[in-house]
Amino acid sequence: MLTLYDNLSSGNGYKVRLLLHQLDLRYRRIELDIDKRETRTPAFLAKNPNGRIPTLELENGVHLSESNAILFYLAEATPFLPAARLDRAQVLQWMFFEQYSHEPNIATSRYWLTHGIEITPERKMMLELKKKGGGDALAVMEQHLTKQHYFVASRYTIADIALYAYTHVAEEGGFALAPYPAIRGWLARVAAQPRHIPITRG
Amino acid sequence: MLTLYDNLSSGNGYKVRLLLHQLDLRYRRIELDIDKRETRTPAFLAKNPNGRIPTLELENGVHLSESNAILFYLAEATPFLPAARLDRAQVLQWMFFEQYSHEPNIATSRYWLTHGIEITPERKMMLELKKKGGGDALAVMEQHLTKQHYFVASRYTIADIALYAYTHVAEEGGFALAPYPAIRGWLARVAAQPRHIPITRG
Repeated sequence: MLTLYDNLSSGNGYKVRLLLHQLDLRYRRIELDIDKRETRTPAFLAKNPNGRIPTLELENGVHLSESNAILFYLAEATPFLPAARLDRAQVLQWMFFEQYSHEPNIATSRYWLTHGIEITPERKMMLELKKKGGGDALAVMEQHLTKQHYFVASRYTIADIALYAYTHVAEEGGFALAPYPAIRGWLARVAAQPRHIPITRG
Repeated sequence: MLTLYDNLSSGNGYKVRLLLHQLDLRYRRIELDIDKRETRTPAFLAKNPNGRIPTLELENGVHLSESNAILFYLAEATPFLPAARLDRAQVLQWMFFEQYSHEPNIATSRYWLTHGIEITPERKMMLELKKKGGGDALAVMEQHLTKQHYFVASRYTIADIALYAYTHVAEEGGFALAPYPAIRGWLARVAAQPRHIPITRG
């Protein structure tokens, strides 16, 4: 059986939980407490030397990390990943955009503001930078979604899952979604997909 | 013909230039001056709303961005991207690692230190954080390369190209490579690949 090393508050973990549920795949979930550094123990670093969840342990014992790489692996040959070469590259384009331009701004702000992290003067300054960067990322998404119902190939794919994870809880990171009507419409379409589950469900 | 919107100082651009050359694909290269914000003009934002190079214009007029998504697109069905599902996921795992844990630390430090960017007290503080994050990323690479000659499938793939781009110039960002003998051995193996070109070649 698959084993997912996970944390319920993590949007990156949620991406994988959501796709596993939508694919109706059984798996064992192991909750690790990030705040207590349970992802940095020698036992876990042997599974993922980068010390992060989600990490997926496959049936053959191999460990796969990086949420979007796990999504791509699980979605191969399913309706969640298009077959055409250019569509697949565009799915990856949006997933790299998510990890570079979206997550470090919106997810990190949310983590600091919801995990009781001390807001030092340095973090206060970085929150301002992240406010700008996250707003820029949301504006790029809004522009795209004004013209299309989903990110790639006019249908729900792992690009939508990757971007939904932290966008739908962006307000917890201090990002109001009221100015983004196209994003709000897309969030509702994603949440209405068959077998959708909330981020809080383990 | 393919058109690459590019900047010669960019390691992200170099990834694409290197693979295009190794695949012996002809393309037109358009140099944009990042410092003069030539990637933020209305004309360029129409090609990539996220305002970044590299952006590849395909023969059919579609624009593809995010360096590692472009690598994946170009490498499909070539020896630079393995065919096996798990190998492909591991290639992506290392490419997401590169964009999340490596590039924002090492490439951004290099950019600030080589483009005459003013080192304000805020940037000085962030350079310290990036020193720690970049060192952690290099340590993860060193551990992996102590056991393997290349990142995935025991051969040169786009995962190596993605990680080579900013690792081989890490010292320009203030990251000494002397403590990483396995990385230095791998850098030499990558540089010895057929049709290798330096970052400075347009």
